Amino acid sequence: MSENILALQKLYDDNADNIVNGFYEFLRFKSISTEKEFAKDVRDCANWVEQFLSEAGLHTEQWETRGHPVVFAQNEQDTNKPTVLIYNHYDVQPVDPLELWKSDPFVPTVRDGEVYARGAQDNKGQCWYVLNAIKLLKQRDGSLPVNIKLLIEGEEEAASDGLTRIVSERAKQLAADHLLIVDLGFHHKLQPAVTLGIRGIAVMTMKLRGSSVDLHSGGHGGIAYNPNRAMSEMLASLYDKDGKVAVPGFYDDIKELSEQERAKIDFSFDKDFYKSTFGAEPTGGESKYSPAERCWLRPTVEINGIRGGYTGDGFKTVIPAETIAKISCRLVPGQNPKKIGDLVADFLKSKAPAGITADIEVHQGGGTAVVTSPDTPVVQAAAQAYTELAGTECKFIMEGGSIPIVTELAKASGAEVVLLGYGLPGDLVHAPNEHFGLDRLKKGFVTIGRILELLGSGD
Amino acid sequence: MSENILALQKLYDDNADNIVNGFYEFLRFKSISTEKEFAKDVRDCANWVEQFLSEAGLHTEQWETRGHPVVFAQNEQDTNKPTVLIYNHYDVQPVDPLELWKSDPFVPTVRDGEVYARGAQDNKGQCWYVLNAIKLLKQRDGSLPVNIKLLIEGEEEAASDGLTRIVSERAKQLAADHLLIVDLGFHHKLQPAVTLGIRGIAVMTMKLRGSSVDLHSGGHGGIAYNPNRAMSEMLASLYDKDGKVAVPGFYDDIKELSEQERAKIDFSFDKDFYKSTFGAEPTGGESKYSPAERCWLRPTVEINGIRGGYTGDGFKTVIPAETIAKISCRLVPGQNPKKIGDLVADFLKSKAPAGITADIEVHQGGGTAVVTSPDTPVVQAAAQAYTELAGTECKFIMEGGSIPIVTELAKASGAEVVLLGYGLPGDLVHAPNEHFGLDRLKKGFVTIGRILELLGSGD
Repeated sequence: MSENILALQKLYDDNADNIVNGFYEFLRFKSISTEKEFAKDVRDCANWVEQFLSEAGLHTEQWETRGHPVVFAQNEQDTNKPTVLIYNHYDVQPVDPLELWKSDPFVPTVRDGEVYARGAQDNKGQCWYVLNAIKLLKQRDGSLPVNIKLLIEGEEEAASDGLTRIVSERAKQLAADHLLIVDLGFHHKLQPAVTLGIRGIAVMTMKLRGSSVDLHSGGHGGIAYNPNRAMSEMLASLYDKDGKVAVPGFYDDIKELSEQERAKIDFSFDKDFYKSTFGAEPTGGESKYSPAERCWLRPTVEINGIRGGYTGDGFKTVIPAETIAKISCRLVPGQNPKKIGDLVADFLKSKAPAGITADIEVHQGGGTAVVTSPDTPVVQAAAQAYTELAGTECKFIMEGGSIPIVTELAKASGAEVVLLGYGLPGDLVHAPNEHFGLDRLKKGFVTIGRILELLGSGD
Repeated sequence: MSENILALQKLYDDNADNIVNGFYEFLRFKSISTEKEFAKDVRDCANWVEQFLSEAGLHTEQWETRGHPVVFAQNEQDTNKPTVLIYNHYDVQPVDPLELWKSDPFVPTVRDGEVYARGAQDNKGQCWYVLNAIKLLKQRDGSLPVNIKLLIEGEEEAASDGLTRIVSERAKQLAADHLLIVDLGFHHKLQPAVTLGIRGIAVMTMKLRGSSVDLHSGGHGGIAYNPNRAMSEMLASLYDKDGKVAVPGFYDDIKELSEQERAKIDFSFDKDFYKSTFGAEPTGGESKYSPAERCWLRPTVEINGIRGGYTGDGFKTVIPAETIAKISCRLVPGQNPKKIGDLVADFLKSKAPAGITADIEVHQGGGTAVVTSPDTPVVQAAAQAYTELAGTECKFIMEGGSIPIVTELAKASGAEVVLLGYGLPGDLVHAPNEHFGLDRLKKGFVTIGRILELLGSGD
């Protein structure tokens, strides 16, 4: 192991108690960006993050958006050093179903070295090792090896609605050579990997209405068209029998990877690991592609939520007046979020039966997919840091999730992008019992520190 | 108007304050039979009803069931008089969505002569005029013109699960000549009508599970099969393009009405009234039948509720581990609830895609459909009472709803059945803002009183 790595590990160990306690404090904020009732918690969290960075000796700002604020921070910029923009987010997903959490999602609890809390991995854990690496490296060396710009968003889980609208006007402040998106991870615990691509996203809400009031299913069953039936039929029409999305034009704009690009990516998929970790079979998506291809290279339509009528104890034999669905599309390179969102919405509308009114809102702020070349210097630096720390060659993978703001950030900053982090498939992000390992908090700290050293030295 | 009618109207008017105040008291009980948390409210309501009947001078009992108790009451039985069994229920439907109620569902509120409360019509209003007619007729005349047996159930909205299991062993106590099911009404405000038939019902709960935890729709979309997609596809497969139920064998056992029987029934349907009352178009069901035929003579499958994943503010891009649906089938003569329930459940199970586990519970206590001849003496007595009071000829209609216990009660009592009441299509039973008119409380009182006089006199 290199001396740089050993020194960074010592730096972490010497400050471990402070780092870990600060992490727990960060996790206690209920910074759920998509639920209005938590607006104050989100802002409190932004203030706390800004305070931390200010105390670390950085110049800090909060950028107001029409939603939640963005925290921005930088050290004194030196024109002889390369500039590194790092992206994290301090907001988290909602917590329901709350009853499935083994401990309070906002009271971080350690079991077997893993910290359980909403946001433990996505993205507070990954944000926290970045912030601490910068603070302690600066403290240790008196200055940082690069110009640092930190952009810590408060609406990643809300499709980055606010930041998207202001990012182009902040282009000058965001100008950088390298852009690190620290919200990713590996697909296998012992195999370090840098992520070359993420999917884009388009989201929409569909409401169906049949009557002005809930109807008795005895007195009206056979007369009125049940919105739950319409919802089932309309959503089912989105898929053909081979799992392809049946919306005409859905696949038209896809830019396929070249054979050369595909060859560098590790598409292996461990079905047994998948089954034991998630209790699921890989039976979704298009039958003619492998599971990793379906998740990384193919777009999807997913029904994230449906709700209509009575589903409590016993029975309420009702034909509901209204039913609702939340739908998201994951997109691959070439696909435009607005175009795909409208395409799917128009298709669904065309399937509404007589007597049912379909109201579909395609939400702003979707993101396009991003793919980076493995030969990019910042990708190379990240791969080297992982390899040095793990003693194993770093691989290249992709990710099916989305970070809608990445394309916009890359454009505004003019930087080359690398997607990385210490997430693992079993972390249960977006689900009950999300967790992140304390060992990974340290590894992330060391890896970020080493990447900054490598980029600063021009190695 | 006959003297008998005028005398009954006066009897009501002389006691109107007491009757109305008692009605409000009855409505304040949260006797929701399908939700466990209201078990005590249901029992309190049963005790209150029994107390009222005991004070009216009847012999009363409560019959325990495995669910909520049944209140039974009778006057001193005279072998020279005919015996009339009257059925009502004191339990009510759940109240959600609560936010759509204009006033508290358990604080009866009068607007334009209509009492708004859960159960105002179904069935507390209809029960209340029966109880008061019996009490005051007995008080006025010293005795009743018939032997009365009152059966007031606490689980009608829960498919009469408890009563169904004990009704045959209570056959001796229930023995009667005439059975009045006072839980129905008219289809047009100014057209009195007696109901010749109701549909049966079979209910089931379907749970689909894809994974052991909720999954991120980015990292898993395209890999795992989304239970919301499976739910949509499976439920959509229940219907063909003409609105027929696509389950093989579903229509096999239907006993059609004869042309002669059909000719006596008023199948008229006012589309404009329907639209203005319910805000709905009559576009559901089988396209080759008229709306009233679809509701009265044809069986249906309705999806009463679906819930899976996130449908709150904003977005949570999840593939839920589990999704649930509540389904009910309305049945017509010839169809057996258990057979149809199993048929639909087996069909749905056969449609579950690989990777999705379907768990379907067909609930006990479904009821068969009932049809009575218009020539039955008790039907004739009811029609005459309506005609006398309204000064308009009473018509014969049917009803799409179900009162599962009716077949069992008819069998156990050996009585001839009539289905009647003062419900109207706009009463919003099973929906927010359910209501019942104070004018109908009086009309119901008079009608029941007159029917008992007619049956007692042998007219």
